[in-house]
Amino acid sequence: MYWQQELETMPVEALRALQLSRLQTSVRRAITSPYYQQLYQQRGITADDLNTLDDVKRLPFTTKQDLRNGYPYGFLTVPKTEVVRLHSSSGTTGQATVIFHTAADIRDWANLMARCMYMTGARNSDVFQNMSGYGMFTGGLGFHYGAELLGMLTVPAGSGNSKRQIHYMKDFQTSVIHIIPSYALHMISVFEEEKVNPRDLHLRIAFLGAEPHTEHTRKRVEDAFGVKAFNSYGLSEMYGPGVAFECPEQNGLHIWEDSYFVEVINPDTLEPVADGEIGELVLTTLTREAMPLIRYRTRDLTSISSEPCPCGRTHRRIARIKGRSDDMLIIKGVNVFPMQVEAVLMSIPEVGTNYQIELETVENIDVMTVNVEVRDDFFLGDVKGLTALQQKITNALKSEVLFTPKVKLVEPDSIPEAQGKAVRVIDRRVAH
Amino acid sequence: MYWQQELETMPVEALRALQLSRLQTSVRRAITSPYYQQLYQQRGITADDLNTLDDVKRLPFTTKQDLRNGYPYGFLTVPKTEVVRLHSSSGTTGQATVIFHTAADIRDWANLMARCMYMTGARNSDVFQNMSGYGMFTGGLGFHYGAELLGMLTVPAGSGNSKRQIHYMKDFQTSVIHIIPSYALHMISVFEEEKVNPRDLHLRIAFLGAEPHTEHTRKRVEDAFGVKAFNSYGLSEMYGPGVAFECPEQNGLHIWEDSYFVEVINPDTLEPVADGEIGELVLTTLTREAMPLIRYRTRDLTSISSEPCPCGRTHRRIARIKGRSDDMLIIKGVNVFPMQVEAVLMSIPEVGTNYQIELETVENIDVMTVNVEVRDDFFLGDVKGLTALQQKITNALKSEVLFTPKVKLVEPDSIPEAQGKAVRVIDRRVAH
Repeated sequence: MYWQQELETMPVEALRALQLSRLQTSVRRAITSPYYQQLYQQRGITADDLNTLDDVKRLPFTTKQDLRNGYPYGFLTVPKTEVVRLHSSSGTTGQATVIFHTAADIRDWANLMARCMYMTGARNSDVFQNMSGYGMFTGGLGFHYGAELLGMLTVPAGSGNSKRQIHYMKDFQTSVIHIIPSYALHMISVFEEEKVNPRDLHLRIAFLGAEPHTEHTRKRVEDAFGVKAFNSYGLSEMYGPGVAFECPEQNGLHIWEDSYFVEVINPDTLEPVADGEIGELVLTTLTREAMPLIRYRTRDLTSISSEPCPCGRTHRRIARIKGRSDDMLIIKGVNVFPMQVEAVLMSIPEVGTNYQIELETVENIDVMTVNVEVRDDFFLGDVKGLTALQQKITNALKSEVLFTPKVKLVEPDSIPEAQGKAVRVIDRRVAH
Repeated sequence: MYWQQELETMPVEALRALQLSRLQTSVRRAITSPYYQQLYQQRGITADDLNTLDDVKRLPFTTKQDLRNGYPYGFLTVPKTEVVRLHSSSGTTGQATVIFHTAADIRDWANLMARCMYMTGARNSDVFQNMSGYGMFTGGLGFHYGAELLGMLTVPAGSGNSKRQIHYMKDFQTSVIHIIPSYALHMISVFEEEKVNPRDLHLRIAFLGAEPHTEHTRKRVEDAFGVKAFNSYGLSEMYGPGVAFECPEQNGLHIWEDSYFVEVINPDTLEPVADGEIGELVLTTLTREAMPLIRYRTRDLTSISSEPCPCGRTHRRIARIKGRSDDMLIIKGVNVFPMQVEAVLMSIPEVGTNYQIELETVENIDVMTVNVEVRDDFFLGDVKGLTALQQKITNALKSEVLFTPKVKLVEPDSIPEAQGKAVRVIDRRVAH
């Protein structure tokens, strides 16, 4: 039932003591990097200032911009001979970031991933098809290493080539998949084209990661594939996937507090928010060697719960990610998260598997158009039905975002297929 | 100087003794698979029949078609719970093959790859950019695992996105690359477009794998990139890369005889050929757990040399692959290997980085057209020069293949870019 019972079910008090000792080690290590050395010297901070977990508040936050400024080697704490891997964000814009890993980091990451997957019920008797891109994208190698460590038969399918994916599922009797939610929605129509019912295959578990998604999307994937779908959370700055994951209770994602010190703050005041209140997730690595990060502002919006979980794990749970503080669109002065739009669309049965938000400036006013794929069977219906559907979606969106968007119904599969993360927003607005 | 000195420099007699004992173990293990069990029972063969290495001749060959017939689980010797990875060829044609690996196999493979790379001078102070596709293609994960084990800083760049590859090389001071030869040739023109001279970067070693290539192609890559380029040989049926690799002497590829029992046979008579004679390489796995293969006919044409190597390694060397017996084209009754065409083209300085062979039937006769990219500077020359070049290439090809091909000179970059293995031959001939 547990991959590492002692750590996963550690009494909270012991867990906090472990965190404090690891936090001290991690800060001591961080201070050997050029970036933190200079910063902490300027502020007169030493690792000795950390006598309780509460003392973490004395430490400055680390932001994505800090990582950019420190690119490439500013955060490194070990000689380059000890580094065995890096993962970098796009290097073409000049705004790249990079994360380094020692061999121990790679093992640690694989272990966390194995722990996550084992928690959902995946076992070494499972066949695991990794349907996400490999290479720089941390989702690919992250799940791959974890699955091999767990002992699943790993099928390194990669992303795309949907018909071949279906062949693999049939031939190898795939029982567990890792898939990006937008690609999972796309696959539903490929299964229909191929006249294969995924419920007739051996699938039983799906890991949905890399993109925030709604409960409706999960339900759609679960219904179509005949699986139990688990929400995976991670970010490349903290290895990648494996930071937090749902247990079979599916009442939030256990965040591994033996590896991460967790805070949720108000992004404006930077003060901690109460349990259950939405704020920005802030993480400190507790075990990473090559590149410890202290109080890293993830930009991901969530809340935390300390309620005991029936599964017996004592690590707290974060709620499904509500969006990123960066992703917030200000449209006609209103704060809108793409996730809100998705939640509305996925609750309407006639809506297909894909959508896209377009933003334009028309006569100095923001205009939001939502292109919505309609399911095959509904699209072939009469014009009256389509007009009614368009009105229904418009009303539902209006009641969520509080202004009236344009809604355009489009044919199934007419929005370009996502192979990596889906492009949900096209913003062509003129800067005011 | 050696990754595993004892094994790499083992006296030949001791190496043969090790091979015999491992061969016996491997055959004993193979017989537990459904395929070999049935085959050996029919033929009345048992592992006890193997008292000398010469006795291997009593064992039947294994072919690609046998692997297809045994798809997917016919060759498996362990419970599925012990298998942690598979690599499969295309599953869309119904002619798929699959190779399975235990955790020990994956470690063994990584170790062989580390041994190969260490042999060329790669060290844990190097930054290794893996410019080949990941996923099912064994070149990606094969080199990746080996590089991490060796301790190089591994940049999992994947294939394609050439401009970003150049950014990575600059930003991370990449010193070692793994690249498919056709992609290396393509990259030369990308460097020109980007006005970056690869010789000004930190590159020092390139591993060229996955495609047979000529000495001229190697020289071109070495000159353009300012590296020493090493030839890598492997096939997915034997893990993938890591079967044989060049040492700094570059007088052939050491084939790891502690892991493979090596034969070179006449593909028609199936009898062994003498040292130095070209024949088909036949390999038997000596250490693989999940799926031992006995006397596997690789279809790769090469010769073997037992001459001592100045590097001190006692494992014999195979010559650069001359082609695949499958790849042989019969054109106007003449046997032609695409490698012969490549060798001719790459020896002509005006020729660019890409070419393609088209075959058609015109009035019941085979017609071979060779489309040849011309270098930028030559292409912009006068018509007379181009006509002369066309004649020069035609003559050179004719003297190699013994009939007169059509030669079409085309603009640089007009032949579609290869991201995986290049498509060198388009055969539109009508079957007679």
